[in-house]
Amino acid sequence: MFQTPYLLFLGDAPDPLAAKVAQGIKDWRPEHCAGQLRLDGCKANLHLPDQSLEEAIAKGAKTLVIGVANRGGSISPDWMPTLMSALEAGLDLASGLHNLLRDNTDLVRQAEKYGRRLHDVRVPSQTSGIANGKKRSGKRVLALGTDCSVGKMYTSLCLEKAMRVKGMKATFRATGQTGILITGNGVPLDAVVADFMAGAIEDITPDNAENHWDIIEGQGSLFHISYSGVTLALIHGGQPDALILCDEPGRPHMRGLPDYSLPSLEAVRDSALQLAQIANPACKVVGISLNTSALSPDRAAAICQQTEDRLGLPTLDPFRHGAERLVDALADI
Amino acid sequence: MFQTPYLLFLGDAPDPLAAKVAQGIKDWRPEHCAGQLRLDGCKANLHLPDQSLEEAIAKGAKTLVIGVANRGGSISPDWMPTLMSALEAGLDLASGLHNLLRDNTDLVRQAEKYGRRLHDVRVPSQTSGIANGKKRSGKRVLALGTDCSVGKMYTSLCLEKAMRVKGMKATFRATGQTGILITGNGVPLDAVVADFMAGAIEDITPDNAENHWDIIEGQGSLFHISYSGVTLALIHGGQPDALILCDEPGRPHMRGLPDYSLPSLEAVRDSALQLAQIANPACKVVGISLNTSALSPDRAAAICQQTEDRLGLPTLDPFRHGAERLVDALADI
Repeated sequence: MFQTPYLLFLGDAPDPLAAKVAQGIKDWRPEHCAGQLRLDGCKANLHLPDQSLEEAIAKGAKTLVIGVANRGGSISPDWMPTLMSALEAGLDLASGLHNLLRDNTDLVRQAEKYGRRLHDVRVPSQTSGIANGKKRSGKRVLALGTDCSVGKMYTSLCLEKAMRVKGMKATFRATGQTGILITGNGVPLDAVVADFMAGAIEDITPDNAENHWDIIEGQGSLFHISYSGVTLALIHGGQPDALILCDEPGRPHMRGLPDYSLPSLEAVRDSALQLAQIANPACKVVGISLNTSALSPDRAAAICQQTEDRLGLPTLDPFRHGAERLVDALADI
Repeated sequence: MFQTPYLLFLGDAPDPLAAKVAQGIKDWRPEHCAGQLRLDGCKANLHLPDQSLEEAIAKGAKTLVIGVANRGGSISPDWMPTLMSALEAGLDLASGLHNLLRDNTDLVRQAEKYGRRLHDVRVPSQTSGIANGKKRSGKRVLALGTDCSVGKMYTSLCLEKAMRVKGMKATFRATGQTGILITGNGVPLDAVVADFMAGAIEDITPDNAENHWDIIEGQGSLFHISYSGVTLALIHGGQPDALILCDEPGRPHMRGLPDYSLPSLEAVRDSALQLAQIANPACKVVGISLNTSALSPDRAAAICQQTEDRLGLPTLDPFRHGAERLVDALADI
């Protein structure tokens, strides 16, 4: 979808967190990163070579990725000179911002003038059909959360990395904006028209070699009333052979829903498995991924052990402990 | 949304089934029907007064509703003179066709020239926000199917009629094209962007009097892998107090999915209730609606009785037997 390598634009990021999209690309696709471009006052640093547009292009860069988020998701006026110059110099632009590149008439005119492309990853780049439910070859694993933002994408990317290290064939399939910017392709499922959600997931996880794994990025949660329909479309469009449950221990309530408490892992396991087996009767829950980033190492190890004892499934924080035990569980399928 | 009364346009319908949208409007909203307009060769007849455009307008008609479906959902060239004249004469147009009125430049220009409106009910008429899950006042019942097209809309409309006869406050909330054409408002849920599905259902079922019932038209099925996400958004956006399960006995497989068999009513009851209680812990399954249109009266009565004995819930075909026993079950909540 996007041409690589990327020049990562960090803009005037007020802190490292504002550049977390760029950080994700650098963490998971370092081979796609030519360098970083920072404006005066930028407080983020990915420890990539600082490059001007010309330097990046000399190193082969093809796309300037806006790896920084602004309050409100707008395109900052301070970025515009750089974005306009990038198009003129021969780079495409890619963005996950709420305000679309294609709605900015200056950028549209400049892209037309210099024959460059504007990639807005919030907008599906192709239309899908209605899901047909036919059994596809190859294997698929889906990360399912108790809630939104519990670490499903990082779990999936950790899995991909560990599977490849082990010599397995594996492809991360992005279903959200950040994942698409990291990998350069995928579908922004939350922006797909309802009738075509499951079909869009079928499209990005097509027939494959029998020993190939699609690692499907989860979205939302069956228990998050705002987004549960998106989650179920992932389960039924993805027809996964395996589910990995994701949780962040200690959350006081569902994200954005103060009146809703989190489901137990047991409740997610039971609901999800029943629904997943409609599309794939052989589907199993194979392991649990806990986001322990807020916990001490001892506390993280203890809660993983307790959870493993309680559910009888391999339980770990893949970003902290490595994903090998989850990969072993998948390799047994 | 649309101005009433309607003139129902039956066009050159090759058989009565082609005019089933118009039939639905006449069956369920006879008070909105000024008359019918038929072209030469029309084989459908709603037994409404045959009217010219001028006669209908003289009787107060405000909107010409295209109540006939063409193969492929296109706007037939043979209809165009009537549609163009209707706009000129002062009528709005409403359509559920796949090909949109707004994509026909002749109709758009004519509507602009005469200040008329083009209503395409396949396109959401307003944008919704993300569902917030807050408890709303008033009561809600949702029709849930084992499969697509098992009679959820007719069940809902029968319920509305019977509840009003009983003196209850009740409003049918349309979520599909035909339902919207029948009632003149609602949301075409299958055309809503994924993130806003549950929010759209919250919007059409707002706070209401404590003794008022919203009767929410169901879509798809939790067990239909192509559309299950839409169904779950209805369950979580609608936060129903009561569910009515809908089935058509004797189907060989899920609609459009020859490899998928139908779920039992017990499986639908259990899955749906568990998910519905996330949004409304008090939710109950109160009854079962069977579409027995293909069965003899004796066979229909027998299968309703067998199902009632098996599940312990009032079971009937509301179109055939009346919906009173379902209404009684709702009145007890």
